[in-house]
Amino acid sequence: MSIITLTSDFGNLDYRVAAVKGKALSLKPELNIVDITHDIQAFNLIQTSYIVRNAYKYFPNGTIHILSVDSFHHKSRKNILYKANGHYFLAADNGLLSLIFFDIKPEAIYEITLNNRFDDIVNFTSTDVFVPAAVHLANGGLPGVIGREITKVKELMFPKPVYNESEKMIIGEVTYIDNFGNIISNISKDLFETISKGHESFTIKFRNLSLSKVFSSHTEVVSNWERETEYHGQSAAIFNDSQLLELTIYKGSKKNGAKSLFGLNVGENIYIEFS
Amino acid sequence: MSIITLTSDFGNLDYRVAAVKGKALSLKPELNIVDITHDIQAFNLIQTSYIVRNAYKYFPNGTIHILSVDSFHHKSRKNILYKANGHYFLAADNGLLSLIFFDIKPEAIYEITLNNRFDDIVNFTSTDVFVPAAVHLANGGLPGVIGREITKVKELMFPKPVYNESEKMIIGEVTYIDNFGNIISNISKDLFETISKGHESFTIKFRNLSLSKVFSSHTEVVSNWERETEYHGQSAAIFNDSQLLELTIYKGSKKNGAKSLFGLNVGENIYIEFS
Amino acid sequence: MSIITLTSDFGNLDYRVAAVKGKALSLKPELNIVDITHDIQAFNLIQTSYIVRNAYKYFPNGTIHILSVDSFHHKSRKNILYKANGHYFLAADNGLLSLIFFDIKPEAIYEITLNNRFDDIVNFTSTDVFVPAAVHLANGGLPGVIGREITKVKELMFPKPVYNESEKMIIGEVTYIDNFGNIISNISKDLFETISKGHESFTIKFRNLSLSKVFSSHTEVVSNWERETEYHGQSAAIFNDSQLLELTIYKGSKKNGAKSLFGLNVGENIYIEFS
Repeated sequence: MSIITLTSDFGNLDYRVAAVKGKALSLKPELNIVDITHDIQAFNLIQTSYIVRNAYKYFPNGTIHILSVDSFHHKSRKNILYKANGHYFLAADNGLLSLIFFDIKPEAIYEITLNNRFDDIVNFTSTDVFVPAAVHLANGGLPGVIGREITKVKELMFPKPVYNESEKMIIGEVTYIDNFGNIISNISKDLFETISKGHESFTIKFRNLSLSKVFSSHTEVVSNWERETEYHGQSAAIFNDSQLLELTIYKGSKKNGAKSLFGLNVGENIYIEFS
Repeated sequence: MSIITLTSDFGNLDYRVAAVKGKALSLKPELNIVDITHDIQAFNLIQTSYIVRNAYKYFPNGTIHILSVDSFHHKSRKNILYKANGHYFLAADNGLLSLIFFDIKPEAIYEITLNNRFDDIVNFTSTDVFVPAAVHLANGGLPGVIGREITKVKELMFPKPVYNESEKMIIGEVTYIDNFGNIISNISKDLFETISKGHESFTIKFRNLSLSKVFSSHTEVVSNWERETEYHGQSAAIFNDSQLLELTIYKGSKKNGAKSLFGLNVGENIYIEFS
Repeated sequence: MSIITLTSDFGNLDYRVAAVKGKALSLKPELNIVDITHDIQAFNLIQTSYIVRNAYKYFPNGTIHILSVDSFHHKSRKNILYKANGHYFLAADNGLLSLIFFDIKPEAIYEITLNNRFDDIVNFTSTDVFVPAAVHLANGGLPGVIGREITKVKELMFPKPVYNESEKMIIGEVTYIDNFGNIISNISKDLFETISKGHESFTIKFRNLSLSKVFSSHTEVVSNWERETEYHGQSAAIFNDSQLLELTIYKGSKKNGAKSLFGLNVGENIYIEFS
């Protein structure tokens, strides 16, 4: 049974998600359609890339992922079929694929030509281009039949952390806040470990807080499980599933409408000072 | 594989959506159940009609749509099985079906009599009436076995736009605000084009803004795709998928808790002046 | 076709729900995976128990329910496979199962030993422990193969209502507020009926309101359906599907950001005075 996943910024108070599913099931009733999320902030490609990058690997090889974020049809913009890591991705050529796969080479890239001849009347890219293309693949069709091989997609870059040698300080920033209010930075474990060599200690600083340890998981914070409740509310830094520095409060939860546990916003700086 | 869609105001923080799915799968495990939305504002029939009207057409003929909005069981209110455009709709006789199909004649209407004899003990209409009726249809059962044919359902009317001849002005209103904050009015393309004949130009007015062009899609706003970012934030009027006048801000997004891109609310007036 | 349901506090703006589904479909593509909810408030076991307790019964016997709330892996905490009422439940040993089944005896309880040997590297309990265990069961595997039978789980208690004999008063509290803003208390129909015997009348009191009748359903409030709109906004007490005292406003809806219809919060007292 072929699996198609859907990721979008359509929200759930709209007919668009249902339209995509209805169209797909009209073309191939036995499809298995799985939502990744439809709550992406409108047009937010960085948020999309973080979620898709972490989610897709759990699906079986050959899964087809439709990425309906910033995919309004425009005759001057390509639609892309991207094969990487054994999975297929369908998206507008808006830079999203370069963010998801910043460190992975694609197996193949195609400009989707299916429905290209209806260029002026494609109304809703997801139902008019992505779904027919996905069903073609789900039916075992070859990418070359619906697309023209190309060599690259639009490139976007994440904001990169920098290392200031005179100050012995990594300067990173908040790139994502997850559903629990955890703060995910752009500082990778690799960068941290490279700089760590040759220094004795470090301090992570943000706002008026500082932390001098990085845990390897949320529960590692709890050294004595019998007294687990005593650890509630403790601040901690961890390297998360994506091997990125994450700031969290153990069993904290967002209060007073704060978007994040520490009140930090996307784009704010996080520093690691070495000594 | 039979498809059943679900639309409700149950929200997702509740056991009711799961109850409906569980009951349906208990009766027929191989059903394919697709959510349209469960985020309808409590009892909001106009919002429901807009979403269902735009979503159902994408599904294959024969799809069964359960509409659980304002469907509390009451012994004095009928439950309806409505066939239109090759699709089946199950809803309480609350006027919703007349809003969805204000311009389409039904193929048949039935009062559901299934479980009627348990009149005093129907507890939750969706699991106790709609699901068994839907499964009966999914099994290829005839509507007449579970219902009694009737000729009409409760009628509700949308607020209608008016044309003021002395002022040469269409007076419409906001009927819906979508997930992106786009404003959908009750002014149809048909009405606009009828009045347009014999006039040279027009101005769309709302709050203190005016627009003098209607685009045919969101991206038509962008005449030069190379400089697409320069168009972000541009106000535009379009005729949307439903052929209704929609006000949008290109790649705008809701800020400061505003429900809509222009701060307009449902019920506010929108004017088109002709000259 | 085996059914697996998912309940979590992951929210829908995250990769975790998709990760669980992807992992399950990777192991067994023909699974039918149904969401109960992912909008549980972070770590809220009482809310989880209320929703799961009301939802699971609608599913067919043999359904496997994964409960991913407060399930961070910790080497000192067991993961549980719990069989009750013909259904299977997978959860961390955090007390949740004792809340769901406070009045039902389990058929069997197992400590999950599957993946136990990877104790230090289980990263995400739901994909690394619950999903493989669920798929084992879905394939018809015996619980004993993946677990070790045990006799009890961690016990948690709901706040219990008390009866003050000198004041002839039941003192209960708000334990849950549903998606519509309805207020669910911990006062059961059983307790109410036991105390009622030997008293002539009663008054339900909360904040500065009092009610002297309990309805058996939301629509019973409406005695004359022809004039149904006149009942909108009427306060009422009912015994709900769970046989718990619920306070509601007929066709009310939450306004001004109030979480509940009466502005009450979880934990506030509700009194029933008898005379």
